[in-house]
Amino acid sequence: MRIEIVSLFPEFVAQVAGHGVVGRAQERGLLSLHGWNPRDYAEGNYRRVDDRPFGGGPGMVMMIDPLRACLEAARAADPAPARVVYLSPQGRPLTQAKVRELAAQPRLVLLCGRYEGVDERLLAAEVDEEISIGDYVLSGGELAAAVVVDAVARLQDGALNDAESAVQDSFEGDGLLDCPHYTRPVEHALGEVPAVLLSGNHALIARWRRQQALGRTWLRRPDLLDRGTLSPADHKLLEEFLAGAG
Amino acid sequence: MRIEIVSLFPEFVAQVAGHGVVGRAQERGLLSLHGWNPRDYAEGNYRRVDDRPFGGGPGMVMMIDPLRACLEAARAADPAPARVVYLSPQGRPLTQAKVRELAAQPRLVLLCGRYEGVDERLLAAEVDEEISIGDYVLSGGELAAAVVVDAVARLQDGALNDAESAVQDSFEGDGLLDCPHYTRPVEHALGEVPAVLLSGNHALIARWRRQQALGRTWLRRPDLLDRGTLSPADHKLLEEFLAGAG
Ligand SMILES: CCCCCCCCNCc1ccc(CNC(=O)c2csc3nc[nH]c(=O)c23)cc1
Ligand SMILES: CCCCCCCCNCc1ccc(CNC(=O)c2csc3nc[nH]c(=O)c23)cc1
Repeated sequence: MRIEIVSLFPEFVAQVAGHGVVGRAQERGLLSLHGWNPRDYAEGNYRRVDDRPFGGGPGMVMMIDPLRACLEAARAADPAPARVVYLSPQGRPLTQAKVRELAAQPRLVLLCGRYEGVDERLLAAEVDEEISIGDYVLSGGELAAAVVVDAVARLQDGALNDAESAVQDSFEGDGLLDCPHYTRPVEHALGEVPAVLLSGNHALIARWRRQQALGRTWLRRPDLLDRGTLSPADHKLLEEFLAGAG
Repeated sequence: MRIEIVSLFPEFVAQVAGHGVVGRAQERGLLSLHGWNPRDYAEGNYRRVDDRPFGGGPGMVMMIDPLRACLEAARAADPAPARVVYLSPQGRPLTQAKVRELAAQPRLVLLCGRYEGVDERLLAAEVDEEISIGDYVLSGGELAAAVVVDAVARLQDGALNDAESAVQDSFEGDGLLDCPHYTRPVEHALGEVPAVLLSGNHALIARWRRQQALGRTWLRRPDLLDRGTLSPADHKLLEEFLAGAG
């Protein structure tokens, strides 16, 4: 997979992307990242990329032409078709389902905004979708692009090591929060390890973990749990958890 | 404000945080970031920080003692009380309201997880709250911490320049998505600028922008709009937008 990052600060994204899973995926040839700076496609001595908004008001708007030329150059760098994603607070919130969809593309172009935003005509003509990473305000789209790159990189085949991908397989798809985890020592001033985890009874352990995952999801993220679609077994586990047996 | 970052890769967060608004806030003395590595508080030749989960299964769990000693050192570095936030997919989703609350603290400790998670006993004893940045899976808590740092930094008094803070003032709080923006040139192959923005009629421009913001929020993020609580004027603008006049 190839990801083009269109940003006034492409080195920022490259730095982020040199670490951890993203760095490893690049070393293994699973992913390559390329930065593109609209300023390099701006005209005149000042290489201006932004201007004041029509209608007045504060902030600056990124102009069509430098961005368009930059996007065109990024597109032309490889023959594979590229999905163009604009990172913006106005976008649809990123979900793991969307991450899976993006991870399956041969190529992505991630467009990062700064200033007040980007001329709407460019967005309408050149952007396939607008994505937000959450309901909070960042200083630009670069960190959001880094989030997309990280989430997409770890889904490339071979990007995770064995332990990491076993963990991934165990939770991806069920839509529940994780159960609590414990490790050594068994005895600690901060408390005990639940006895079931020390029992060696794998069926009971699996049941306890499922119950904890259901209970926590219910308590912390009821929006993720549609009680109506729980299996009868899960429904019973959850009732038991809520009755204080969890 | 002082932010302590507890992570196995503290340099990652520092790098991310050296740029843009966060870098500027640090230069202006509004914010300082300090990295703390649990490995520096681990014992033995191997400086082990993780171990296998009780009950079996894939992945590794971060052990209590190195993390606890590391948190203790981070806390002791300054007399101001510190809110301890654990970044985790199990946390409550970050919102701008939470960002405002965190930005008002004198000190934050951001705890980043890796591996499968952290021993639950440590979380119960030492963590004030667990926060997620969204419903997607990252390779660790570091990028999530960088997101919190960025969002919190731009709310420190004096961190934004004048244009940036005027933009901020104009939208923070109303909970709507932004209206579209346009800048020069007026005539472009990609399309025209809506005539109202060129009219010089400030009341009409404000009305159009409000209507666009309402309409877009309705179309893209109906979850943010509670139609019942709209003022009669907003309600009328939205009806008009939806009738195709927007
Ligand atoms: C309930 C949330 C509604 C938020 C509405 C915010 C409207 C802000 N307009 C000005 C603005 C433009 C661009 C930015 C920089 N942010 C991004 O480019 C961005 C790109 S993706 C993203 N995801 C979450 N949050 C974000 O700020 C972003 C910040 C403020
Ligand atoms: C509908 C979402 C449900 C997600 C449930 C995911 C359970 C994952 N457990 C294993 C795991 C632990 C830690 C990570 C690393 N991620 C973070 O530490 C993290 C810290 S804050 C955050 N916000 C959104 N997504 C994230 O992955 C994070 C990744 C996988």
